[in-house]
Amino acid sequence: MTRAAARYRDAGVDIASKYEAVERATDAIRKSFTPGVVGDVGSFGGLFDPAKVGCRDALLVASADGVGTKLEIAKRAGVFDSIGRDLVHHCINDILVQGARPLFFLDYVAVGRMEPAMVSELIRGCAEACRENGLALLGGETAEMPGLYAPGDFDLAGFIVGAVARDRLLDGSRVRAGQELLALRSSGLHTNGYSLARRVVFEELKLGLEDRPAELEGQSLKEALLAVHRSYFALLWPLLEKNQIAAMAHITGGGLVDNLPRVLGTCDAWIDRSTWTPPPLFRFLCERGRVAPDESYQVFNMGIGMVLVVDPAQSAAVEAHLRAQGENVLRIGKLEKARGAEGEVRWVS
Amino acid sequence: MTRAAARYRDAGVDIASKYEAVERATDAIRKSFTPGVVGDVGSFGGLFDPAKVGCRDALLVASADGVGTKLEIAKRAGVFDSIGRDLVHHCINDILVQGARPLFFLDYVAVGRMEPAMVSELIRGCAEACRENGLALLGGETAEMPGLYAPGDFDLAGFIVGAVARDRLLDGSRVRAGQELLALRSSGLHTNGYSLARRVVFEELKLGLEDRPAELEGQSLKEALLAVHRSYFALLWPLLEKNQIAAMAHITGGGLVDNLPRVLGTCDAWIDRSTWTPPPLFRFLCERGRVAPDESYQVFNMGIGMVLVVDPAQSAAVEAHLRAQGENVLRIGKLEKARGAEGEVRWVS
Repeated sequence: MTRAAARYRDAGVDIASKYEAVERATDAIRKSFTPGVVGDVGSFGGLFDPAKVGCRDALLVASADGVGTKLEIAKRAGVFDSIGRDLVHHCINDILVQGARPLFFLDYVAVGRMEPAMVSELIRGCAEACRENGLALLGGETAEMPGLYAPGDFDLAGFIVGAVARDRLLDGSRVRAGQELLALRSSGLHTNGYSLARRVVFEELKLGLEDRPAELEGQSLKEALLAVHRSYFALLWPLLEKNQIAAMAHITGGGLVDNLPRVLGTCDAWIDRSTWTPPPLFRFLCERGRVAPDESYQVFNMGIGMVLVVDPAQSAAVEAHLRAQGENVLRIGKLEKARGAEGEVRWVS
Repeated sequence: MTRAAARYRDAGVDIASKYEAVERATDAIRKSFTPGVVGDVGSFGGLFDPAKVGCRDALLVASADGVGTKLEIAKRAGVFDSIGRDLVHHCINDILVQGARPLFFLDYVAVGRMEPAMVSELIRGCAEACRENGLALLGGETAEMPGLYAPGDFDLAGFIVGAVARDRLLDGSRVRAGQELLALRSSGLHTNGYSLARRVVFEELKLGLEDRPAELEGQSLKEALLAVHRSYFALLWPLLEKNQIAAMAHITGGGLVDNLPRVLGTCDAWIDRSTWTPPPLFRFLCERGRVAPDESYQVFNMGIGMVLVVDPAQSAAVEAHLRAQGENVLRIGKLEKARGAEGEVRWVS
């Protein structure tokens, strides 16, 4: 270590540890590389050739996201790889709803003190989720900011780029009255509603992550709250390739109430909540957190992570594909001409 | 505001303020839109058509970055728009060195408490820098995380995607012994070395941002430390279009010593430090921070923000173009066959 490095370390910035953190995750990063990646880890910017993965002259779809305060649960539990998966899956779903296939992902990790084991776990989680979903972890930034974050504290954000052929873009223009709403289960809170969940669990109920409240039917709070955000890519991509979906909504912050209208155009979505039972975690949080039933569908996903808008002529085939993959698909409602100027969610029951 | 929103706000998350922050910056965001942008602000992912800006079938170059602890200076000074510019310019330069033209940018803003005025300034700074450099602010995420960040605290990260034609990629393969090194001035620390700078200025010297140490020759510490990271895009793009540059290095964290070797291949860079005088801020920080001269070129950029590697046959034309733009270009050295297995920086004086 040079004296300059020593001085810099003295000021709270440890360059050697940063290299070690990235080094530890390098194998996992390389394993995520697809034929689209040009070159290797470590250049100024990551290089990608869309033509090499069959996406010459496609539209690009890009999205940035964080994991919100689910981070706090991961820190309490000392579990770091699953939060990277949460982030990658969230980003994949966000562009999938526009019909896009993910091409590559970049991470941003900010820490108070560089702890190579923790940082490499975060990056490894991202890299493995990328590999499993066929996209490349093309680059990222790891920043040590001792003044902003406490030692042991960190933030994680991600950025995804995907591609969609011009004639396959899902932009709401294919949405029509009469279409059906097929819903896919979430695995838990995904990455939304954690500020409220943490308040209820830790502050109001004074529970710990190892606790197993009766309402969770045997599951610990750690298991329930850290359940990985599902990626719907592998399940839904074959349907997109067959052009069988008219629109999709990823149910994130704002729940069904705020997310579904983003693709409704001038239709209302009439949803029958009796068609599914929210999983135990949601019932537990809503009851203990005194969230009114109607409002809970804006704070949480209530057990639904993705909604497909499908033509009646396609819905049997779509449902059959999903069931063949073991998916417990829910027919939660249908579209009608909007009563107001803009489409919104309306409850049948 | 619904009761759910009230509960959520109660837990520290204020959705209405988040919308207000983005709303305030929407005009600036729209003004950054180029012909490549498809659709408007607010869809799940941002859509971009490279063909609409003359980049059909190009390679993509992507990079993620933060502004490091320059954030702390911005917070102390209560100045938020310039930090967004810093970030965009940093990202532009990072992909420019591979020959890429920037297409679009996405921001990630994380705050402890949603303060619409502050957040909209951060985003507006990003948006204006995008517009000035011809790229689109295509999307972003604003996250309120009351547990992780203190009220008033924030982090800012950015992601950029650019395009380069396959035969114009700068990947180090055109670097040869005998080529010349032309250097472009930085405007200050750019976005690196702030942890050490803060320690020297605030902790060791106990100075404030309004102070004007004699060494800064009239400039205040605020002016010197918040000088915006230069974007070299407008200056250098005409040279890249004419294929007059063999390689480039953006001098960021690690200084000349760590960044130049990334493009040197099997050449050493022989640099004559007598060809320029580091600006007053660097001399002040190195002297007061007791950083040894040799080491200072790894901690700080020492007044050089970008280095161009140019064929001797091109160097007069390149220099003439730069001087015609008012640039004080420096001829700092040249390349020779490496003495070791890998190229490194060697000092002539």
